[in-house]
Amino acid sequence: MNRRAMLSGAAALVAAPGIVPAKAAAAGADPLPSWNEGGPKQAILDFVGRVTTAGGHDFVPPPQRIAVFDNDGTLWAEQPVYFQVAFALDRVKALAPQHPEWRDTEPFRGIIEGDRQALAAAGEKGLLQIIAATHAGMTTTAFDALVAEWFRTARHPRFDRPYDGLVYQPMLELLALLRANGFKTFIVSGGGVEFMRVFADRAYGIPPEQVVGSSGVTKFEIRPDGQPVLIKEAKVEFIDDGPGKPSGIDRVIGRQPILAFGNSDGDQQMLEWTAAGTGPRFLGLVHHTDAEREYAYDRESRVGRLDKALDEAVQRGWTVVDMRRDWKSVFPAASPAERR
Amino acid sequence: MNRRAMLSGAAALVAAPGIVPAKAAAAGADPLPSWNEGGPKQAILDFVGRVTTAGGHDFVPPPQRIAVFDNDGTLWAEQPVYFQVAFALDRVKALAPQHPEWRDTEPFRGIIEGDRQALAAAGEKGLLQIIAATHAGMTTTAFDALVAEWFRTARHPRFDRPYDGLVYQPMLELLALLRANGFKTFIVSGGGVEFMRVFADRAYGIPPEQVVGSSGVTKFEIRPDGQPVLIKEAKVEFIDDGPGKPSGIDRVIGRQPILAFGNSDGDQQMLEWTAAGTGPRFLGLVHHTDAEREYAYDRESRVGRLDKALDEAVQRGWTVVDMRRDWKSVFPAASPAERR
Repeated sequence: MNRRAMLSGAAALVAAPGIVPAKAAAAGADPLPSWNEGGPKQAILDFVGRVTTAGGHDFVPPPQRIAVFDNDGTLWAEQPVYFQVAFALDRVKALAPQHPEWRDTEPFRGIIEGDRQALAAAGEKGLLQIIAATHAGMTTTAFDALVAEWFRTARHPRFDRPYDGLVYQPMLELLALLRANGFKTFIVSGGGVEFMRVFADRAYGIPPEQVVGSSGVTKFEIRPDGQPVLIKEAKVEFIDDGPGKPSGIDRVIGRQPILAFGNSDGDQQMLEWTAAGTGPRFLGLVHHTDAEREYAYDRESRVGRLDKALDEAVQRGWTVVDMRRDWKSVFPAASPAERR
Repeated sequence: MNRRAMLSGAAALVAAPGIVPAKAAAAGADPLPSWNEGGPKQAILDFVGRVTTAGGHDFVPPPQRIAVFDNDGTLWAEQPVYFQVAFALDRVKALAPQHPEWRDTEPFRGIIEGDRQALAAAGEKGLLQIIAATHAGMTTTAFDALVAEWFRTARHPRFDRPYDGLVYQPMLELLALLRANGFKTFIVSGGGVEFMRVFADRAYGIPPEQVVGSSGVTKFEIRPDGQPVLIKEAKVEFIDDGPGKPSGIDRVIGRQPILAFGNSDGDQQMLEWTAAGTGPRFLGLVHHTDAEREYAYDRESRVGRLDKALDEAVQRGWTVVDMRRDWKSVFPAASPAERR
């Protein structure tokens, strides 16, 4: 069975939550009902209006209406750890019985015993060991199935709902508004491309071929029974973060976007690259200012630090979305997983 | 100026040659007029009919109608050398005055003096040196401009027409037929992704984000004048050939295609990967059998060798297109470049 094809097929049948039909937008209904009136909402609507007005000075032909979105912290939450890290930690715990040696080896010991300090101390090297142990040595199909199963069963520690229920309702509306206006919407994320594809179509309406992310090396092999497979190897191929994002955009999309949205310093170069060149551009940052409904963090945060990019945004007049002020609601009422 | 955006914009205004409007197909006109009646034409039409018949056993929802095509030898000619190699050789000659040291260094000496044996002897290592000398050390924008200029000026030694005039008319019709039936058409080629994007939209109607190819490392940099650029480095990042093709498909497209067309052993794994899984599949090979109108080569050819893949195609009943027998015409009457 081709599980990925099955997942995509299922996704096509399930409407993404919060998607506003183009018709409603055309009929004059508010296409961004979860956005409070104010600067960012107005800036978005102005931009979309300008680039789609035929004959106008800022008109952009549809093939060039490329919009790129960071994922973690921009389209869904990223605290207290990136959700893909939460998946990896859950996998380590699930695999522990088969790896008695992990009980004496960091960073595995720390994870198994719930020692948060040990995990933090493991740093990037430790994280790569965890990724190798949980994301490699299996076929791409087997990995997809593990991720899909995790989305069905795991729950976020604070919000007690499936992780894919923690997508941002205002951003779902923005994605839908852009697509209704001839934009092609892409994810450009530091996250693993295969991890994201399992839920991106269902959660955001973004198909697999419009997800750009970090990747590991895969190896083509024909199994003894004649079945071809791709094996995920424990070797990093490409890190789609920071200065890697313009490279990832160039390699996969091959044109400069006209709209980019991020939330952290890891998105700074993607915004700079999008801002370059001529013609109208929209650059946006989600600023996490809402400790009550979501989280409040920026310059000092370990996860999703927003420091230099915030200074540049202010200096260059990019749109900074203040979550507390600008968003009427944060999460959708019910995730697809919760409705299952 | 963003030359790439400009090129894409221009491409949107120029109809690709040989594209059959969906309407004509719907009205009962032959959607494949350059194909002779017979097995391959019938197999294509049958397949497209089956996967698009709503309610039928073989129906495939549009998002899963992914079609992948090799480029060299499948969508355009590849003799006497891959056209990208012809571009690189022309660049070496153009750059020679700035590199007096090349007069005593292989493979450059051989190229400059037109010594074909020296070039052949240089092998893969020599080819990589040539690619490094001609495809790196400049911005992506500068490279695009060089390729575009080459298409405007270079002419094929045998057919005396611009290289992008040597696309295959029957394949243009096939691409158009598939798109008119809800397929998304991709190139998956061993060629350089940035080289192909310069002409793929204009020549095939395939936009930059649907071109998968080999790539070099690019480095993001902000120039002293504040302008962000991507520098092409002399480092191979990914070779999208042979067993690399399934990996490239997985990384960029993220789903298994249902149709794949190639012409050489470098496409064998792509066809095997496409054939895997359940549901209807179409696997095709272009067999170069037409020395008069194009070229005749297969098992012994240095460029585009077709040996093991041909055996597998025969054994598994894949569609083998005999160019001489199955194609009414090979090249379009006039290329976009020639009409300029």
